[in-house]
Amino acid sequence: MFDPKPYIRTVPDWPKSGVQFRDITTLFSDKKAFRQLVDAFVHQYMDVEFDAVVGIDARGFILGSPIAYELNKAFIPVRKKGKLPFATLEESYDLEYGQAEIQIHADALKPGEKVLVIDDLIATGGTLEASCKLVTRLGAEIVECAAIVDLPDLGGSKNLKDQGISVFSLCQYEGD
Amino acid sequence: MFDPKPYIRTVPDWPKSGVQFRDITTLFSDKKAFRQLVDAFVHQYMDVEFDAVVGIDARGFILGSPIAYELNKAFIPVRKKGKLPFATLEESYDLEYGQAEIQIHADALKPGEKVLVIDDLIATGGTLEASCKLVTRLGAEIVECAAIVDLPDLGGSKNLKDQGISVFSLCQYEGD
Repeated sequence: MFDPKPYIRTVPDWPKSGVQFRDITTLFSDKKAFRQLVDAFVHQYMDVEFDAVVGIDARGFILGSPIAYELNKAFIPVRKKGKLPFATLEESYDLEYGQAEIQIHADALKPGEKVLVIDDLIATGGTLEASCKLVTRLGAEIVECAAIVDLPDLGGSKNLKDQGISVFSLCQYEGD
Repeated sequence: MFDPKPYIRTVPDWPKSGVQFRDITTLFSDKKAFRQLVDAFVHQYMDVEFDAVVGIDARGFILGSPIAYELNKAFIPVRKKGKLPFATLEESYDLEYGQAEIQIHADALKPGEKVLVIDDLIATGGTLEASCKLVTRLGAEIVECAAIVDLPDLGGSKNLKDQGISVFSLCQYEGD
């Protein structure tokens, strides 16, 4: 399977001291690596039956949209609060200081539809967990949550799995 | 050519009274329309020589990324201020009240590279114009600015064309 690590740039001390930020823009800016990245997810899900890709604002859009395109699925955005113009459902998740809200259009998914939830990276998993709640509140079913990078030490992927949600990532960084 | 209008939802009085907001999420959430939408741009540019798609945060990511994927190009995000972790270039553009800033990574494009700049919609064109300045400051060349929707009455596409920038849109709404 394609290993994205050689194309990911680690930016030290961003957005704050002590954090090793995994910058995936260098993966998207290499045309062959970008193609191989998307194709890795296409191969992973081409035999799976599902209806839509739910992509999380905003890096999840860059990965999720071409997966949806190539597999002939719908693309549904989960967005930061205030960005979606029609009736929405909303969930909060914890940030380091305070909370943030994400929304999905109330008519974006029908009960029983199967979705793949895509983000770029799993850290504490708060955004992914809130996104899964939105999907579930619409009556849709989560096939899997998938990301390029998992940071298992931060507990997000374990927390999702403990809730019975399947999780897939192309690579992991431990000791972060 | 594919006409996206039947799939675009008009939300009246959003984000404020008197605005007819053109909601393209309903275009992305119809799997056949989403495929046809991306393919319309793929057909438009498959015979054009260029290196990268520059997509504008965040709806421009949903359209730009699958175009880059399908045409085997790099994908370069232009982002709202504070989202890119490495060295950046910045441009301001006017909002109704005040200004906003967008950024591109300083090493995202090389001099002489040819790029297609993608957003979802052209209104006053401020974000697109600022994005074009960022691309030009990196020494890269703009092949065209492309969007799903143009609102010609707001003057953005005319302003870009007056600066010698080629502009393409799949559909237009006049009288907005």
